[in-house]
Amino acid sequence: MLQDSLLQVRDLLERHRVLEQLTHSQEVPNRELLEALQRRQNVAELHHKLRALHPADLAHILEALPAEDRRIVWSEAEPAKAAEVLVELPRPVRDGLLEGTSPERQRSILARMDADDIAYVAESVDGGVLEEVYRALDAPSRVWVESSVSWPEGSVGALMTSDVVSVREEWTVERCLAEIRLRGRLPRQADALFVVDSRNVLRGAVRLQDVLVSGPDAAVSALMDDQVVGFTPDDRAAQAAAAFQRYDLVSAPVVDDRGKVVGRVTVDAVMDFLRREAELRALKSAGLSGEEDLFAPVWASARNRWAWLAVNLVTAFLASRVIGLFSGTIERLVALATLMPVVASVGGNTGNQTVALLVRALALDQVTPGNVRHLVVKELGVGIVNGVVWGTVMGFFAWMLYRSAALGAVMAAAILLNLLVAAVAGLAVPFLLQRQGRDPAQGASVLLTFTTDGMGFLIFLGLARLLLVP
Amino acid sequence: MLQDSLLQVRDLLERHRVLEQLTHSQEVPNRELLEALQRRQNVAELHHKLRALHPADLAHILEALPAEDRRIVWSEAEPAKAAEVLVELPRPVRDGLLEGTSPERQRSILARMDADDIAYVAESVDGGVLEEVYRALDAPSRVWVESSVSWPEGSVGALMTSDVVSVREEWTVERCLAEIRLRGRLPRQADALFVVDSRNVLRGAVRLQDVLVSGPDAAVSALMDDQVVGFTPDDRAAQAAAAFQRYDLVSAPVVDDRGKVVGRVTVDAVMDFLRREAELRALKSAGLSGEEDLFAPVWASARNRWAWLAVNLVTAFLASRVIGLFSGTIERLVALATLMPVVASVGGNTGNQTVALLVRALALDQVTPGNVRHLVVKELGVGIVNGVVWGTVMGFFAWMLYRSAALGAVMAAAILLNLLVAAVAGLAVPFLLQRQGRDPAQGASVLLTFTTDGMGFLIFLGLARLLLVP
Repeated sequence: MLQDSLLQVRDLLERHRVLEQLTHSQEVPNRELLEALQRRQNVAELHHKLRALHPADLAHILEALPAEDRRIVWSEAEPAKAAEVLVELPRPVRDGLLEGTSPERQRSILARMDADDIAYVAESVDGGVLEEVYRALDAPSRVWVESSVSWPEGSVGALMTSDVVSVREEWTVERCLAEIRLRGRLPRQADALFVVDSRNVLRGAVRLQDVLVSGPDAAVSALMDDQVVGFTPDDRAAQAAAAFQRYDLVSAPVVDDRGKVVGRVTVDAVMDFLRREAELRALKSAGLSGEEDLFAPVWASARNRWAWLAVNLVTAFLASRVIGLFSGTIERLVALATLMPVVASVGGNTGNQTVALLVRALALDQVTPGNVRHLVVKELGVGIVNGVVWGTVMGFFAWMLYRSAALGAVMAAAILLNLLVAAVAGLAVPFLLQRQGRDPAQGASVLLTFTTDGMGFLIFLGLARLLLVP
Repeated sequence: MLQDSLLQVRDLLERHRVLEQLTHSQEVPNRELLEALQRRQNVAELHHKLRALHPADLAHILEALPAEDRRIVWSEAEPAKAAEVLVELPRPVRDGLLEGTSPERQRSILARMDADDIAYVAESVDGGVLEEVYRALDAPSRVWVESSVSWPEGSVGALMTSDVVSVREEWTVERCLAEIRLRGRLPRQADALFVVDSRNVLRGAVRLQDVLVSGPDAAVSALMDDQVVGFTPDDRAAQAAAAFQRYDLVSAPVVDDRGKVVGRVTVDAVMDFLRREAELRALKSAGLSGEEDLFAPVWASARNRWAWLAVNLVTAFLASRVIGLFSGTIERLVALATLMPVVASVGGNTGNQTVALLVRALALDQVTPGNVRHLVVKELGVGIVNGVVWGTVMGFFAWMLYRSAALGAVMAAAILLNLLVAAVAGLAVPFLLQRQGRDPAQGASVLLTFTTDGMGFLIFLGLARLLLVP
């Protein structure tokens, strides 16, 4: 269905383009009138389509369009819709679109956002425009936006919203309902009302469903659960997300260090955070510096990939120097040059399996000083089993291929030893990255492959020099 | 805090072990009495600790314990707690624990589960026990469990629960509240009541907060939203998860092909699904067949890694045959053997960057026939930029190292060409895997590296034979 909308929008854009070309290339009688008519109808159709789309769907379609089409659709979206779409877009796409948007339009889009959303997109907005928008806000909203912007990415503060309904311990259910009716609506994804005392300090929470089934005279204090999972703004967002998953939360209060309620985290924000994290991790472990717009300009994309490409070149070059040490040996037995990449490749592959398991365990906080020894023993055990099995297989192939049992034996031994290296490096690299305060997945693959390549070449060619080429 | 609990449990286990050793090794006067006392206190302490833990936390601790400790803690958990813990454990850990659990205990644990949870863990339970448990269920629950078990993993059917509260279109709010009071409680994560007609066909939904602020005489039909996002049991779970993320849902109805409500999907199930998917994808793209218990036996772990290791061995071996074709060339210029892994490695690294981007785009349904051309042009552009920049750098190094400008030129040209191969293969491999109905991430890395290794060797050694070694 969403895919259909994407295709329809693409179709309208195609007609739009054909018309543009007509305007510039052909002489038609009454051309201008005809075109103006056609064009208006086409744009009207596009407008109609855009109005009917859910903001999240429109964001998704924008992301899937090449830069030029994206600009056309974006410029045709009404400011109110554009405001809702903007918060749904990934950062690089949002930055790109706002760069090409006039300050006037930016202003009229931001005027339709609430304080939470302004804070969320603030970094992508033109500085001058942001100043004006700030000035137009009422005082509490301004304070909120300014404090929100200061929370670092990855903190609960950056995730929370100001949209909180709190009730007082001494109230009755009837009083709570009156309060809610006064506000007109409850915030999104509110499954509970937060209970505070006269100083706004969190005392507990009342679930909406308990309010629902109680009589109007029931006391909040009687319905209240005082064991509420809450966070502070500088808790790590990942920690909050784990709590949401573990305790099946829908919303949770955020309190400052004096226990006062300052905001609320909801499950939709947590899900967006988790998705972004999972995507970033996948991109980073492949050696990209961060999110990349699918249709980013070539130069921007190339730069996003340079950091780890450079590291990879250096490590590949160093590993190749190991081979350089044995050039005399290779000269006398060229078969070695043919077989050595196999030893390196198998080590890299199995090492990356260990890395993937350990990265998951570290992310879930499952590794403790007490169980590290078990882990090491197990991974070495797997290395020995796989090394014996697959080393024998490959050794046999090498023997048959080059009619040399000794070469086969060297091959088998090298694969076994390199799988042990891979097990140790596969555990050590993520550990060391984490101890350095880095993401254990980031670049782990490049560092691991460096180790298994270098050691693979060293072990295989070293054994060959010792045993085969006297 | 959770980490603390884990350490406390480990500590209790340690004392438990010391005591066990004492029992078997030392002669102490009044030994038996003393031990019985100490042991009882120790176990009592463990019991106390276990009782205080949230089931999800206990599951987490179990997962982080080596097999032996895990069995002790598991056997000490009371059946009611064990029932709640079981559904929180990942499949391999659950399977392992239930294998070592007596049929009697399995029976008493399952007796404390509701139909949803029984269906969820059914595949891990002993067949005989399951039969008995089925027979003890009332008819509707039995039908539910049997139909749930038949939904394949990855379908909405496997994700949904039977815990639905529906109300009738013609009811008033008062009647709805009476119905809820009659049930005593609302199901977990209910943010809305589903509205059905007399044939149980879904008509819409009423949000709890609207019920809350309406008077008792308000009609359900007036409060009802008839544009509800719903699913059928054989929709893909991934599709439902995307809808939950896009439209910020907390719960959604599941209907059969006649529109009758058959179940409900909640955001906690969706989050668990997404987390498992993200983890599985990370493990699979590293070449593991599936989830692996951190403390699985060595043999089980080795087998989990064999499938892709075998594929990797075959592809590495094939790539090495390419080198075999040029053994004469290498014999005359050993520097080639040293430099060739660099060409291969850079290709593999950049190709995997393209794969990571494309896998994300495919997962988000962002690739359409209309934008493929843009993607190809962009990735080839990035390949050319990176190839010229880094090819020049590496060519220069090779020139300096071996004092041969011609060798440097071959190196530079080979890197540029292999980066173009990497761009094409990085796009083609995930596409082809998807067209075959497979996960585009699964094994993409092994297939890509095969291409970039093989072509890297072929291009570099081929150019060298043409230009350097006449």
